[in-house]
Formats: sequence, structure tokens, C-alpha cells
Amino acid sequence: MVKQVRSAFVSFRSRYGAAVALKLQQSEKPTEWITEQAPEPNDVYWPFFHSSFLKTWISKVVVIVTCILLTALFLIPVVIAQSLANLTKLEAWFPFLETILAKTGISQLVTGYLPNLILHSCVKLMPPVMQFLSSIQGHISYSEIQRSACNKVLWFIIWNIFFANVLSGSALNQLSVLLDLKNIPARLAVAVPAQASFFVAYVVTSGWTSISSELVRVFQLICSLLRKGCCCCASAPDEIEAPYIAYHWEIPRMLLLGLLGITYFFLAPLILPFLLVYFLLAYIIFKNQFIHVYAPKFESAGKFWPIVHNSMIFSLVLMHAIALGIFTVKKVPSASSIIVPLPILTLLFHEYCRKCFLPNFTAYSAKTLITKDREDAHDPEMPKFFSQLVIAYKDPALSPVPFSNFDGQIASYFFDDHTTPLLYPRLDPSEV
Amino acid sequence: MVKQVRSAFVSFRSRYGAAVALKLQQSEKPTEWITEQAPEPNDVYWPFFHSSFLKTWISKVVVIVTCILLTALFLIPVVIAQSLANLTKLEAWFPFLETILAKTGISQLVTGYLPNLILHSCVKLMPPVMQFLSSIQGHISYSEIQRSACNKVLWFIIWNIFFANVLSGSALNQLSVLLDLKNIPARLAVAVPAQASFFVAYVVTSGWTSISSELVRVFQLICSLLRKGCCCCASAPDEIEAPYIAYHWEIPRMLLLGLLGITYFFLAPLILPFLLVYFLLAYIIFKNQFIHVYAPKFESAGKFWPIVHNSMIFSLVLMHAIALGIFTVKKVPSASSIIVPLPILTLLFHEYCRKCFLPNFTAYSAKTLITKDREDAHDPEMPKFFSQLVIAYKDPALSPVPFSNFDGQIASYFFDDHTTPLLYPRLDPSEV
Repeated sequence: MVKQVRSAFVSFRSRYGAAVALKLQQSEKPTEWITEQAPEPNDVYWPFFHSSFLKTWISKVVVIVTCILLTALFLIPVVIAQSLANLTKLEAWFPFLETILAKTGISQLVTGYLPNLILHSCVKLMPPVMQFLSSIQGHISYSEIQRSACNKVLWFIIWNIFFANVLSGSALNQLSVLLDLKNIPARLAVAVPAQASFFVAYVVTSGWTSISSELVRVFQLICSLLRKGCCCCASAPDEIEAPYIAYHWEIPRMLLLGLLGITYFFLAPLILPFLLVYFLLAYIIFKNQFIHVYAPKFESAGKFWPIVHNSMIFSLVLMHAIALGIFTVKKVPSASSIIVPLPILTLLFHEYCRKCFLPNFTAYSAKTLITKDREDAHDPEMPKFFSQLVIAYKDPALSPVPFSNFDGQIASYFFDDHTTPLLYPRLDPSEV
Repeated sequence: MVKQVRSAFVSFRSRYGAAVALKLQQSEKPTEWITEQAPEPNDVYWPFFHSSFLKTWISKVVVIVTCILLTALFLIPVVIAQSLANLTKLEAWFPFLETILAKTGISQLVTGYLPNLILHSCVKLMPPVMQFLSSIQGHISYSEIQRSACNKVLWFIIWNIFFANVLSGSALNQLSVLLDLKNIPARLAVAVPAQASFFVAYVVTSGWTSISSELVRVFQLICSLLRKGCCCCASAPDEIEAPYIAYHWEIPRMLLLGLLGITYFFLAPLILPFLLVYFLLAYIIFKNQFIHVYAPKFESAGKFWPIVHNSMIFSLVLMHAIALGIFTVKKVPSASSIIVPLPILTLLFHEYCRKCFLPNFTAYSAKTLITKDREDAHDPEMPKFFSQLVIAYKDPALSPVPFSNFDGQIASYFFDDHTTPLLYPRLDPSEV
């Protein structure tokens, strides 16, 4: 008789064996036994490790609904930021500001810089929120949570920075514009060029400043100094852990600037030199940060690339839609009919890439696995690796250390040794 | 050295082994080695057996585009059928008909029955066309071609019978209605009830007559008599092959009537008794046909069910949209807000079914396969089965019979025996 557990790590003698178990549906009910590739030991997110399919599925649905609501409600700070550009309204709301705002320097600051600052600060609050939402979505590893949060933040900022500024108005109003599929190009053609100067300013205020602050890391410096000041009496303050990069915030931010570049390059080419400076700065600064500052927390295995690809395809199709709208509005039917095949070809290219390259992002091929397995067969280190594998994954809930009461006694009674595997054959007294 | 072939049947000692080879991506390039489950020997469709991924993919794209064009252009006969209901227009076109149409009986026939007859005849031409399109799409088995054609015919008749009659007008006009997502419910709420009497008549004229003609099989009887008359001198005319059912025509036709029932039951409950009679007739007649007339051509393994499920979900969501529109048009905001969660819940149910049940339609579970393999291991018939397996699949292109010229000599030189497998190790003279 074998003890039943809700979920477990299963180790295999070969990579190929693991891939077979991963790819094949194990039981007749597809949701009864779910196999997932085990994350690295330090990458496991334990809270959802034991959850059932239904629980995971429901939390996923709830999180998606919450994300949509959050995206819709986020428009309130955006509208406030936009209204700052209109000083007379602000003075009517807060009469005591009248004397201050009369000064040229301050009014320029308020209209030119403050809206962006407010928008940027509000947006900056979102990555932790989205990461929290992704963490309760049922993923079992930090890397998956980050990838999911990256996707959420990306669509959030595309919606709330690009579309909210372009189609300014209430969320329902925006939605009604986007639901009227036929008129989207025409609406975008009117709305997008009007916001060109705002987005050029956005590249400078948000892009340049954020990339420079990335170099200086002022916020982290202050935190570190505060911690040093507070905990100087506590245990060794010199042990500073190397920080890791927040992919779920850095990637969407760059993709948004990519989207701005692709959609505005033919409407307002002035945006291009600013973007060029941004990307050059980003290249230099992140190269430095990767070499000298950040330590990778997990091996992403290039799995963020499909997000970048999808965002690029979306940007291209959006650009085609805007171009189509502009040529229609300007009454150049020949130009607009030449544009029509472009989005179709782009989507076909996307579909072709999905077929040809996406499978490599989800699993290794049998050929690769078997080659690696054959190499490993002659590796004298393998027995040591297998013995380490048994104790590599430790569920904190099963660890007897944090419990000193009755629970802890039970835990230590069952799992007195960390090296005991979760599953082992046990003789039942009735069977002997 | 092994001879390279573009495609081959590979047989395995166990079902589990075959499933592993099927599920795992074989080479680093996902499109280099494509594994598909082999169809039954009499189910193989050879023309696309040797085609590459790119060729298959391009033909698929071309076929999809053709289908869309065909669906759009099919509106012409529909418009002609609809115009027959308007007799004055017809008399203006063909003045010599004036005297004939003046008689009450004939005018009733023309307005009441003829439009349906024309529509029905034109639609009946589509299944062979769609089957032809599916056959050049790259499928390697007749069953897959039928399934693909079934899907095509279903969406074709939903579009060209339901939507074309409801939103009567040009294809572009219809498309513009459907692209304006926000106003779909309101447009449907106005257009759908107006066509209630047409669809009640459609159930009787198209549904009842087609199901009755299914029993009599007049068309097949005439064909058979003609063949007997012509070929009485030719080889044994008594050898009549049992016919097989055209799933790609019968299933979409019933699903369309299901769609009519679901969308009209609250608008025109009069449709329900007619549909009830239709489905009772269909049950009795098809039960008889399956027992006494048809012989199955291939084992469908229940793979048509997802098409039925998808069509039902689509019908339900369409019904919710119409109800929402009607309550909005009739200004009952409380009722329309109660309707809103229904389509969302339906789609969630659909997604849940996709997760829980769809995997079982594509592959067997490892547990089932291993159980079956263990049963087979003790089966004394297995060696005989394996020896038959080698000669089960015969590519007609490799058969030496139809060739008597130079090509045939080459073929018979390489494959002088049908039992020689396609792949075998051969000693290269340079290596000896």
C-alpha cells in the first residue's frame, strides 16, 4: 500500500522519462492527475502546490475578472492627471493655489511635468499589485508568477497609458469605441495624432528618468540606509543579498515604448530620436546592471520572448489600423487598399511563428533530451546529483522548525528526517 | 546508412510507445519531424501523405480564405430566393410569367415553397464543395477530412441560412452589422423576430422533407437504377457496396435546426412542436438507417462531439445576445441586466468543459494505454497482428500494378515485394 498525497515531486532517472510523464495525460480524467515541470528548488511557490485543478481554475477566473475591473477603474487617476493640464479647472477646485500657479515656472511645471509624474507613480504601483494577483492565480513557481504578472502589466499599461490617453474618456466610452470594430481605424486616425506631443513628452519624462533612476537606484539606496540605521544592533548587517531584476515591470515598460515608436514613427517622426536615446541608454545601463548589480533569481529559459513577440505583432497590427484610418480619413483610397493586406500578412507571420518556434519555448525535443541523457549516463557526478535531488525540495509546511507546539510534534513524528521521500511503499499490518 | 523518406508509417510494439512518440516533439525544429496518429488502413488519404509542413500550412491558409470568399459570394442565390417572395418584382423581370402567377395556387407555391426549395438546393451543393476544399487542406485521413468539412459546412449554413436571412442585405452590410459588436444585440432584436415565420416554414420544408427523403433515398435509388441500366453488360452488378453516412452534411443540418430551436423558442414558441416532430422523425429514421442501411466507413471515436458542443454553446450565447437586445429594445433594464451574467457563465462552462473533457477526444491516457498493452502482452494473436501490420498500409503510388512503363520498372526494382518495409538498414559499399 502506498500513502496517498495530493501533490508530489517525482524524480526520473532520465530527462526523456520526465518529458514522457509530463506530456502524456496520465489518467482517464484529464484533471485528476496533472503533471507540470518541476521548477528549480529555490523557485517553488508553495502556497498553491497542493491545490486541486478546480481551485486553481476558479482562482484563475477570479484573478482575470479582478484584473479587468482594476484596469477599468484605474482610469480615475489617469483622468485626474489629464485634468492637471487644464489649470483653470484646477484653480476652480483649489482656490488657494491661484497665487502659486500664477508664477510661470510653477504653472509650466504643473502642466508639463506633474501629469506625467502622477501617471508614472500610479502606474508604478501596479507591478506589485499584478504580481500579487498572479501569485494567487495558482502558479507553482516564482518564474511563472513573474511571467504571468509581466503579461498582466503589459496589457494594463498598453490599455491605461496608450488607449486611455488616446481615447480619453470613461472606460465604458473607450470600450464602446473598441467594440465598434469597423470604425476603430477611423477613430484611432483622429485620436492618435492628437496625442503625439504627449507621448514625446512621455518618452522623455517617463522613459529617460526611469532608465536613469535605474542606474542610481535611489529608492533601494534609501531603503538600504534605513535598514542599516534601524538594524545596526541586529545580526550581521553586511550580508546584503544581491537584488534581482523585476522582469514584470522592466519588460512591459520597454514594450510600451516600442509600441509608441511603432505607432508614432510615421505620424510624429520627432519621437524617434528620443526613443533612440532611450534604447541606447537602456542598453548601456542594463548591460552594466546585469554585470555588476543584479543576480538572476531563476533561469527564465527565454520564456519571456513570446510576450515580446506578441506585443510587437500587436503594435504592428495597431500601426496598420491607424495607417488605414488615416488614409481613409484623408481620402486616399488607393493607399488604404494597399495597407489592407499588411495586417493579414502580419497575422499569418505570427501564426507561422507560433507553429514553428513556440513549441521550443514550452518543451525540449526528444532528440535533445536523449542526447543529454546519453551524456549524463557516463557522468560520474550523477549518483551524487540523485542523492541531492531527494532532499532538494523542502515544503516549508512540512519543516518541523517553525512549529514548536502540538502541530510541530506531529510533523516531526511523521517526517523526522528530511531525507525521507514523501512517497514510499509501506507494509500494511492487515496485508502481512 | 538508412534510406531517407519524406514520410512513413512507424509501428510500435506497444500503444504506450506509440503515444510517447506521438506526443513528444521529436527534433529541435518543431516542423522538421511531425508525428500524427496513423489512421486506419482504409481511412488513409494518400495525396497529402508526403507533403511538407510548409505546403500543408499554405494549403490550409488558402482553403480558409477560399471558404470565407465562398461564404460571402453565396449570398447571391440567397438574395434571389428571398426576392421570389416579392412577386411584383419577379413579374417585372419576367413579364411572360404574369398570367401564370395570377393563379392563386401557383402564386402561393412560388412565394411559400419555391424560395425554400432554391435555398435548399443551393445549400445542398455545398457539402461536396466543402469536402473537396477539406481534402486539399492537407489532412491525411478521410475521417479528418469529413470532420473538417463538417465544421466548414456548419459555419457556412449558420452564416448563409441564419444570418443571411436575418440580416438580409449584402455580405458587406452583414459584416458591418457584426463588426459593430456593441449594437449586435439591438440589431438582432429587431431582425430575428421578423424572420420567425420564415424559419417555422424552413423547419417544415427543409427539415421534414429532407428527413423523409433520407428514408426513401430517391436520389440514390435513381442513381442505382441508372447504373444497373448502363452497366448490365459489365462485371457483376449485384455487388452493391453498403453506403456510408455523410456526417459532414447530416450533422450541420441538425445543428442548424438546434440553433433555430434555441434562438426562437422564446420569440416564436410555435417553432417548438415542428422541431419536436423533426427530431422525433430524425431519431426514428436514423436509427433505422444505421441498423439497416449504412455501414460505417471509419471509426469516428466520438470526435464529432466537440463540434456539436461548440455549436450548442454558440447557439446559447446567440440566444442570450438576442434576449439582451430584445429586453433593451423593449426598455426592461432589470431583465437585460439579469441576462448579462448568462453568456459569461455559459462561456465559463465551455472553458471548463474544454479543460476537463476535450483532452479525452484527442488522445488516450497513459493509464488506459498501459492497461491495454498489458492485456495484449498475453494475447496469442499479437504476432499475427504485427505480421499483418507490415503489409496493412499500401501507398498506391508505390504499387507496381498501375505502371507498366519505365517508372513501373523502377518501382518494382525497389519494392519488388509488398512485405518489404519502407525503412531498412542497408550496407553502403563505401562503408564496407
